[in-house]
Amino acid sequence: MKAEIIAVGNEVVFGHVVNTNASFLAQSLERVGILPQYHTAVCDEQQAIKEAVLTSKKRADVIILTGGLGPTKDDMTKEVVCEVLGLPLEINEEVLTQIEEYFQKTGKEMPSINKKQAAFPKEALILPNNCGTAPGCLIEVDNQIFILLPGPPKEMNAMFVESVLPYLRNKSSRYAKYLDINCFGIGESALAMRLHSLLGEYKWGSVATYIKDYTIAVRITVYGHTEEEIQLQLDKQKSQIENSLGMFIIGYNNEKIEDKVAQLLLEKHLQIATVESCTGGLVAGTLVNCGGISKCFKEGIVTYSNEAKMKYVGVKEETLRSVGAVSEETAKEMAEGIREASGADIGVSTTGIAGPDGGTKDKPVGLVYIGIATQEGTQVYRLQLNGTRQEVRQKTVHYILYYLYTKLSHK
Amino acid sequence: MKAEIIAVGNEVVFGHVVNTNASFLAQSLERVGILPQYHTAVCDEQQAIKEAVLTSKKRADVIILTGGLGPTKDDMTKEVVCEVLGLPLEINEEVLTQIEEYFQKTGKEMPSINKKQAAFPKEALILPNNCGTAPGCLIEVDNQIFILLPGPPKEMNAMFVESVLPYLRNKSSRYAKYLDINCFGIGESALAMRLHSLLGEYKWGSVATYIKDYTIAVRITVYGHTEEEIQLQLDKQKSQIENSLGMFIIGYNNEKIEDKVAQLLLEKHLQIATVESCTGGLVAGTLVNCGGISKCFKEGIVTYSNEAKMKYVGVKEETLRSVGAVSEETAKEMAEGIREASGADIGVSTTGIAGPDGGTKDKPVGLVYIGIATQEGTQVYRLQLNGTRQEVRQKTVHYILYYLYTKLSHK
Repeated sequence: MKAEIIAVGNEVVFGHVVNTNASFLAQSLERVGILPQYHTAVCDEQQAIKEAVLTSKKRADVIILTGGLGPTKDDMTKEVVCEVLGLPLEINEEVLTQIEEYFQKTGKEMPSINKKQAAFPKEALILPNNCGTAPGCLIEVDNQIFILLPGPPKEMNAMFVESVLPYLRNKSSRYAKYLDINCFGIGESALAMRLHSLLGEYKWGSVATYIKDYTIAVRITVYGHTEEEIQLQLDKQKSQIENSLGMFIIGYNNEKIEDKVAQLLLEKHLQIATVESCTGGLVAGTLVNCGGISKCFKEGIVTYSNEAKMKYVGVKEETLRSVGAVSEETAKEMAEGIREASGADIGVSTTGIAGPDGGTKDKPVGLVYIGIATQEGTQVYRLQLNGTRQEVRQKTVHYILYYLYTKLSHK
Repeated sequence: MKAEIIAVGNEVVFGHVVNTNASFLAQSLERVGILPQYHTAVCDEQQAIKEAVLTSKKRADVIILTGGLGPTKDDMTKEVVCEVLGLPLEINEEVLTQIEEYFQKTGKEMPSINKKQAAFPKEALILPNNCGTAPGCLIEVDNQIFILLPGPPKEMNAMFVESVLPYLRNKSSRYAKYLDINCFGIGESALAMRLHSLLGEYKWGSVATYIKDYTIAVRITVYGHTEEEIQLQLDKQKSQIENSLGMFIIGYNNEKIEDKVAQLLLEKHLQIATVESCTGGLVAGTLVNCGGISKCFKEGIVTYSNEAKMKYVGVKEETLRSVGAVSEETAKEMAEGIREASGADIGVSTTGIAGPDGGTKDKPVGLVYIGIATQEGTQVYRLQLNGTRQEVRQKTVHYILYYLYTKLSHK
């Protein structure tokens, strides 16, 4: 089955909003074996919407429209689709009551313009909206499926996952599953060379790489007719890729490396403390994003100035004078200093030149030192990163988490 | 003039990449008075691309395609467009030399497959690519303009701004200018009520609101034929909106509130220090993102544990025992403690329950206290925020910056 995804709304077409609905839907469709072939976005004009629906009707089996289900006269997705399909709209009393109740709950009376949100053709399967007033609907005619969903991503996502996915899964005899293997510490071409015999398109699916924030994901997609058949192929590919990539693997699917680090710290009953210069609090800020971190995050200090480096973590004045704040020695003294001052098991430090100014020939913008002090000693890593100030700082956070992860998991 | 934006590439259609190119281009086109009517995304299949180009040819004056200019056989945007237009491709020797030189600079020889990137119809205006190997091109035939740009946003953005925008500005007799007035500390409906007589569509343009990260932007769009005419209307609208919104305004267009706070601190020769519990370093991390901040950012401490709160900023054990870590008193003692310990002019603190666990009936998830201590005394703000752990923490950072901004600018 082939699909087309149509976003209706000036806010998308004029670029005020990025069309994340389309990518969410495309990824979700792939999982039930339905291949998206086109995305379209169209402005709030009756004729333009009509043309988009007619075009998609000629080329797709599943047509998903997002947006234009609101109460105002600009909202006309349902009206246009039903006109194209020749299906009259009728007020559904049950839905009308639900919308009225939604308003009652918030202590307001339903404005009369909201009434049209309860109008549907009698052939439609109505999709309840648990996060807003606009119900969606699904209309199957002549082996084509039209699915109308609200525009706000929160409402759309919930409705799609709760009501549409189960319906489509039943329709499709073949479906897909995918797995992202997230890697760090290796470039995209080096990774592609290690995987050269595995990457590509196959009868059973595909293996491809893509960039995901600051990591590279290897995505295995497997198509099949049964769960067992798919899982078998997925496991086979997964173990081959794991053999090739080993220590560069930092997680799967939506796993975050900070959560893995936090989990390892908790498991091993280890406490950590941070002292940051160029990252200025982002390492602590990222670790604190993990729920339950309070058991292992002892304290963090942002020592952006030389004065603070000496005062809080005992960096020697002599070190700062002779080799400077951005140096292996300073990173070492910072990591050891915070470990001692806090009494934590692990002390980590960052010091570097995030830019855009402050670089010299010997110490260019992007030069960063990371220190990790533990009972076994202190290790300092030297990085030369590129990008904007913000990118250099974010990459530094990723590297420190990666080093912590490999250290803690003994990779 | 009406425009259509076409993204070519499986990565977009299958949803692995969000189509940010389309929103960037749509916003940029609006500025030169060209109205985008459709966005399309199409997979890497010759027939599908051809159909998309033929469809757009029927309905748009300006057709912009992104992606598919690379060296592999999957890259066929240029080939398909030229086939549709009936224009033969020829190797352009000058461009070929440039691509060869690009490889020489990185110490590599040009792979033979890259040769096709130098093929263009002789009618094309070639658009140099200063960030990659794929040049773009612009073909004007029969009052239609086809613009082919590379897919990677960095290359695409630069090429569009440097070469395409000036070309289109000359084509269009009417153009637009917009201004975002960014607001914080007020809800969208309350803001809409304050602006009720100003919001809407007019002959000269429009005034609308939209959500931008954690702030609300009021966007004024003005169309016109001359710079003077447009600027006059823009200034008139701007001053009316400023009169209605006053203290809620935190900046214009892409200005960031942290930059404004940093600028005010620098101007007033004030130093700041932070002590963070629930935000765990994000306040410091956000301030440190401003270049030149070292002059006014003294130090930051992440006191996630009660122990650290007592040790570093002298929060009293009695306070923690009697009213707890998430309380007005603790926020006050933290802000005053860091101000004293650091010797900075301003001490700021955060303490709260970011969730998902840890909430009680009296202190629910989302309860946050912010303290700001200055020479004039200490002010504590109580917030009840909603959202995920990450959202509560990010909103807290925005609030603290907003309070600092209003304090420093005496709004």
